[in-house]
Amino acid sequence: MTAIHLDDIKPGDRTRSSRVTVTEAHIVWFAGLTGDFNPLHMDAEAAKANGFGRTIAHGMLTHSLSTGLRSAIDDWAILAFLETRRRFVGPVFAGDTVHYEAEVAEVRPSASKPDRGIVRVAITVKNQRGETVQEGEDVLSIARKEAQA
Amino acid sequence: MTAIHLDDIKPGDRTRSSRVTVTEAHIVWFAGLTGDFNPLHMDAEAAKANGFGRTIAHGMLTHSLSTGLRSAIDDWAILAFLETRRRFVGPVFAGDTVHYEAEVAEVRPSASKPDRGIVRVAITVKNQRGETVQEGEDVLSIARKEAQA
Repeated sequence: MTAIHLDDIKPGDRTRSSRVTVTEAHIVWFAGLTGDFNPLHMDAEAAKANGFGRTIAHGMLTHSLSTGLRSAIDDWAILAFLETRRRFVGPVFAGDTVHYEAEVAEVRPSASKPDRGIVRVAITVKNQRGETVQEGEDVLSIARKEAQA
Repeated sequence: MTAIHLDDIKPGDRTRSSRVTVTEAHIVWFAGLTGDFNPLHMDAEAAKANGFGRTIAHGMLTHSLSTGLRSAIDDWAILAFLETRRRFVGPVFAGDTVHYEAEVAEVRPSASKPDRGIVRVAITVKNQRGETVQEGEDVLSIARKEAQA
């Protein structure tokens, strides 16, 4: 595997991730990991009145899952994950299958560190019907190629 | 427990959450849940060169844990989690103990739905030394009190 450096990434580059089916097991696991047992996610009876009629996955679960999906971004020479934001625009239910579509919005060498730069990526998470469930942006620190002699 | 409605929340209201110690178990669990096995989090030998000298917790793990910590916000009549953003400004290592400090930045009745409104909360996640490790904002949909007769 050849790492993809800042110099290889261009605004407008697009990638599409692998998919994952969000299951009841993910929701229970995430609740146990984080301690977020909000009735929206855990209480089917209460959820009958939540506007969707059933429990929904934690927005942060889908957000977290999206950061683990395989894509070309995995081959980037990532030094750090600097920033993330998401709008939770549609519900994800157990049984839904999600992926993300990403487009590079900005590539900028670091002003202070010549060995790296910043890449901003617009992220759209979609379900199996192509409906957008989350949208936002991730910002990563990416290594530059080593200076040539 | 009496739910706290939109009408009870004011800009400038502050809350401090419970704490959680982030452990190796959290990191392994989160990697297994999400599929994010980046060497920054999983490979102690590779991590010796990452600028911190050791593996760090996933930024999204700390972010997710922060949304599950107990605070006065748990008593809010939350209808939906609409939006989140975080800058990952400092590393979290296994053994660190984190909490968040929150301040209500905006309270706004919904223009279209008279039964609810929007609350924006500034979030700062700190470690046991009081150092900020993440900062950002969460946006929630909160129920209003039922109209009086």
